Amino acid sequence: MEGVDHLSHERSKAQFDVDEMKIVWAGSRDAFEVSDRIGRLVASDPAFRKDNRTILARKELFKNTLRKAAHAWKRIIELRLTEEEASRLRFFVDEPAFTDLHWGMFVPAIKGQGTDEQQQKWLPLAYKMQIIGCYAQTELGHGSNVQGLETTATFDPKTDEFIINSPTLTSSKWWPGGLGKVSTHSVVYARLITDGRDYGIHGFIVQLRSLDDHLPLPGITVGDIGNKFGSGAYNTMDNGVLRFDNVRIPRDQMLMRISQVTREGKYVQSNVPRQLVYGTMVYVRQTIVSDASCALSRAVCIATRYSAVRRQFGSHNGGAETQVIDYKTQQSRLFPLLASAYAFRFVGEWLKWLYTDVTQRLQAKDFSTLPEAHACTAGLKSLTTTATADGIEECRKLCGGHGYLSCSGLPELFAVYIPACTYEGDNVVLLLQVARFLMKTVSQLVSGKKPVGTTAYLGRAEHLMQCRSKVQKAEDWLIPSVVLEAFEARATRLSVACAQNLSKFSNQEEGFLELSADLVEAAVAHCQLIVVSKFIEKLQEDIPGKGVKEQLQTLCYVYALHLLHKHLGDFTSTGCITPKQASLANEQLRSLYSQVRPNVVALVDAFNYTDHYLGSILGRYDGNVYPNLYEEAWKDPLNDSVVPDGYHEYIRPMLKQQLRNARL
Amino acid sequence: MEGVDHLSHERSKAQFDVDEMKIVWAGSRDAFEVSDRIGRLVASDPAFRKDNRTILARKELFKNTLRKAAHAWKRIIELRLTEEEASRLRFFVDEPAFTDLHWGMFVPAIKGQGTDEQQQKWLPLAYKMQIIGCYAQTELGHGSNVQGLETTATFDPKTDEFIINSPTLTSSKWWPGGLGKVSTHSVVYARLITDGRDYGIHGFIVQLRSLDDHLPLPGITVGDIGNKFGSGAYNTMDNGVLRFDNVRIPRDQMLMRISQVTREGKYVQSNVPRQLVYGTMVYVRQTIVSDASCALSRAVCIATRYSAVRRQFGSHNGGAETQVIDYKTQQSRLFPLLASAYAFRFVGEWLKWLYTDVTQRLQAKDFSTLPEAHACTAGLKSLTTTATADGIEECRKLCGGHGYLSCSGLPELFAVYIPACTYEGDNVVLLLQVARFLMKTVSQLVSGKKPVGTTAYLGRAEHLMQCRSKVQKAEDWLIPSVVLEAFEARATRLSVACAQNLSKFSNQEEGFLELSADLVEAAVAHCQLIVVSKFIEKLQEDIPGKGVKEQLQTLCYVYALHLLHKHLGDFTSTGCITPKQASLANEQLRSLYSQVRPNVVALVDAFNYTDHYLGSILGRYDGNVYPNLYEEAWKDPLNDSVVPDGYHEYIRPMLKQQLRNARL
Repeated sequence: MEGVDHLSHERSKAQFDVDEMKIVWAGSRDAFEVSDRIGRLVASDPAFRKDNRTILARKELFKNTLRKAAHAWKRIIELRLTEEEASRLRFFVDEPAFTDLHWGMFVPAIKGQGTDEQQQKWLPLAYKMQIIGCYAQTELGHGSNVQGLETTATFDPKTDEFIINSPTLTSSKWWPGGLGKVSTHSVVYARLITDGRDYGIHGFIVQLRSLDDHLPLPGITVGDIGNKFGSGAYNTMDNGVLRFDNVRIPRDQMLMRISQVTREGKYVQSNVPRQLVYGTMVYVRQTIVSDASCALSRAVCIATRYSAVRRQFGSHNGGAETQVIDYKTQQSRLFPLLASAYAFRFVGEWLKWLYTDVTQRLQAKDFSTLPEAHACTAGLKSLTTTATADGIEECRKLCGGHGYLSCSGLPELFAVYIPACTYEGDNVVLLLQVARFLMKTVSQLVSGKKPVGTTAYLGRAEHLMQCRSKVQKAEDWLIPSVVLEAFEARATRLSVACAQNLSKFSNQEEGFLELSADLVEAAVAHCQLIVVSKFIEKLQEDIPGKGVKEQLQTLCYVYALHLLHKHLGDFTSTGCITPKQASLANEQLRSLYSQVRPNVVALVDAFNYTDHYLGSILGRYDGNVYPNLYEEAWKDPLNDSVVPDGYHEYIRPMLKQQLRNARL
Repeated sequence: MEGVDHLSHERSKAQFDVDEMKIVWAGSRDAFEVSDRIGRLVASDPAFRKDNRTILARKELFKNTLRKAAHAWKRIIELRLTEEEASRLRFFVDEPAFTDLHWGMFVPAIKGQGTDEQQQKWLPLAYKMQIIGCYAQTELGHGSNVQGLETTATFDPKTDEFIINSPTLTSSKWWPGGLGKVSTHSVVYARLITDGRDYGIHGFIVQLRSLDDHLPLPGITVGDIGNKFGSGAYNTMDNGVLRFDNVRIPRDQMLMRISQVTREGKYVQSNVPRQLVYGTMVYVRQTIVSDASCALSRAVCIATRYSAVRRQFGSHNGGAETQVIDYKTQQSRLFPLLASAYAFRFVGEWLKWLYTDVTQRLQAKDFSTLPEAHACTAGLKSLTTTATADGIEECRKLCGGHGYLSCSGLPELFAVYIPACTYEGDNVVLLLQVARFLMKTVSQLVSGKKPVGTTAYLGRAEHLMQCRSKVQKAEDWLIPSVVLEAFEARATRLSVACAQNLSKFSNQEEGFLELSADLVEAAVAHCQLIVVSKFIEKLQEDIPGKGVKEQLQTLCYVYALHLLHKHLGDFTSTGCITPKQASLANEQLRSLYSQVRPNVVALVDAFNYTDHYLGSILGRYDGNVYPNLYEEAWKDPLNDSVVPDGYHEYIRPMLKQQLRNARL
């Protein structure tokens, strides 16, 4: 079957230049080239095989992850990979590991919160992996509310040390990745107590394990918190539990860029603005949005290819059945997810720009755009991760029964992805932050304060509160300004309605709590508007390649109009659009699906994922699904023997009516 | 900590008699008594422990399931349990196993499709488990479309045998539970070929394995299809693959109740009506609806108790933080799921009645209500399983990060539940069947044909097409007839709109395909109406116990009004309700949440689930979550040693910069 391509017919139908689309997806020709090269490198290295991941017991699985991480690091050194290439390599290895936290949290925390001196001391060790670090913030009893953390760091002026302690069971550090079994060091967040006063949460560098024999240092209890969702998936990560029994660290291991404790135990603020911390948050959340587009596109790629391979019903006179992807029910569930993957990709790109912009402003001590940037990234993190988690599961369902097999790749992709909805800010808590910002923005409109950035549209609230959509025929829903205005009007009206309802409460905080479900919906409307508007902005760019821009236009309207349909109640109950216009939007959406259909396999090819990275028999590039599913089945350990272990003890006595005397 | 109850304060707040509610939930005092007794029996038997299920490797896991199944059967015999008690015992053992298929599919298939003679021969063997059977229908390339199956059963008049064969790779039987490693026999569905003609799909009893040594019989290739979603979960089941290489079986192993093949090879229909098969389908789907309420209530019980234990934010002056369950965002996500669990329970009970009714009519050769009953059960199967799958995952999210731990019980509950959305009819395919029935019903209105049963409301289409909701204040949404009319009007208008759009197509089939996404929405509206109306009917009954009926009333309106909010677009764009009325519904919903709040822990206690059955540290009856989470962590195999396996090979060389020469 070498060289077979069951999807060649689908590929030949594409009405656009796939290679050019690959570059759009990657972000630039350079980014594409790096990604493509590293993707192939990983795929061709047998040390990175991952097809046995879901059948390994936890210990073997974990040991195998350590092996891969070491091999990856070895290759990074041998090939002298750049930082970007190394990061792509870890991406394609596609296995959560302590290195994610080391590079993604430990190093950035020291960079962001350490003094120059501290950076000079710790970063070279971390860069060479002579120490391995993690990020210990959340506790057994404390997640989202960082200010509620209980771990203490009490300054002892006698010895010039901090005493790190876990005063209660619920103060045990809980969840940090890389902590359970691997990290030698951690940035630990604890209540700083000095001079008899509690100064709130600060970060400290704490060594956890001996660099000689890896044993926990005195006073430290550390272990893994146990099995998590799925087989394989995040169980390759040693999420950990950590308790301190009055562990002493030198004073200079407090991260002192923003505030310091002096030799005498005085707490002093530095002249570095605290807002810098928010800059880091913008960065981290931007990467999460970008990861969302990867995870979603991966699921969509699998579901799309298999939907083109799979046939059900519709056979006439014994001919082939209909390809599942030709059913409108399949299209109306799958194509919006495809469009979302592209939409999230572009909004992620834009967030990169936003981060750069915010950073430059912060350096110039301009904090004016920070609250808006913060609300915007919080909201987009929430929106994209929720949609991606739901979308992956929807893709699994779109693959029918076979999607439930581990070898479809979708169960593991779901299980490994969903923590993104919780970490770095619970998605509902984040939307409430967005809502709070929106309410503030709305309340300041009367005072004439001009909203900025993604909330600029609220400056046109007067118009948006009373405008009526001009749509008269289905094609009018393809006019960018028409779509944009509908989304702006909806977001404005939901926000203003919340603000009006809030104003009826004498106690604003109580009102906010009481109306929080409505506020979340207003926040979602605002965030969806951002994604739609950034997609439309992307289309204003010069995009080369035959048919590429046309495809993106189609996807943009699929994204917008499917949202409009899904949240129709918002649009119609606020009078933004009429029922007739809603029905025209639906009509247009159906016609867009027909336009996507011939291009759909090529549109997922444009993600340029290797079969190794996809890790799915259903999503194979060549579409040669069934022989490979059949072959894969026999690899299950249960098939090691024809008669299963347990037959003689349990099945035979049952069949032979000899259970009475059996010990079970 | 023995005897501690962290939730006693919550329990004391309940405004109703929990013990009486337990009986309502169970269906009757008798059912409660059996369930309660068997639940305790299983929970107190150490042989049924399941707390290690997610950390066992597949082979151990499977062997352990065989042990439990044998032990369960032994107890059933020893205690001379009735059929009902035995079925409850399997329910509380809570581990998918070959016995589910033996009792749930193999035995019913013989009962339903076998002649009296065949039943007399095979059922006694099956009842004593002297043979173990499964149900082999789906194939590698064929799921929903039963008519597309490829396996053949060709009659050979020379030997009076059928030759069972798998002509292609895609004809391999694929998925049947209990097939992979255990079953000795199977009901196999294959194309019956005799006299040179293909008579379509029929069932045959085929022996697969030797009763002496359990080896597959000649010509049979059989094995397990491999790992599935989640750890533990459905991996306790040996879903199998099966191929036949011209396997011969006696003619009398064709299930011949409906049609027969004579000694000469003539195909003959018996005088038993084919419709009986649909009766079985109604039965199976009714049990699925009832299972849905169990699975959803279990997840809701866990999330509710933990939301009462868990505290986040809102601390003033160092006092305790706010219980998570007091947040409106939590309530607006959790309470509708609680209400759904009760709603599905009651509609499931009603389906039991419907099955009895249909069966009696079939016996009297009255087929008039069958299409409606069929559509109704298909739709409710789809609606309740989709809502339950989504609801379990939502409950997991409502538990924050800890819901992601296997010991929360929620990951496994999700993974083990979701196949219900696919088996016994893919949920979207089923909704299309409902839609087809609705379109037929609507088209017959003009001819004066009176719609029956759950479609009776369509007989009032003229009124429902133009009626306006009379709601003027929030409390009006608590009037049963008002709620019912809104749902009836919505369902009618969506169906009629679809019918009108369909009529614009010259080819009805093409129209149906083109509009299928809209048709699915109309079907959903119809099914939701059924659930709402059956809940309201339940409230007409005499329900004893202090405050019990009041609680159910509250839950009924929570269920209805949350649906109204969720599908607001349907209601407003069809003019069933005005935006103002929608906003009043929302206001009423918020007030209902406040009424549920003090009762919520008692409302989940009413499910009467043992801690063993729940299998969740977060959902413990006593609410003593954190010490138990902490203790559980140390049981993970990764914590067997302080320094992890792999340290010397992979971590140390990395830290010591000695990777270059390492073999990885």
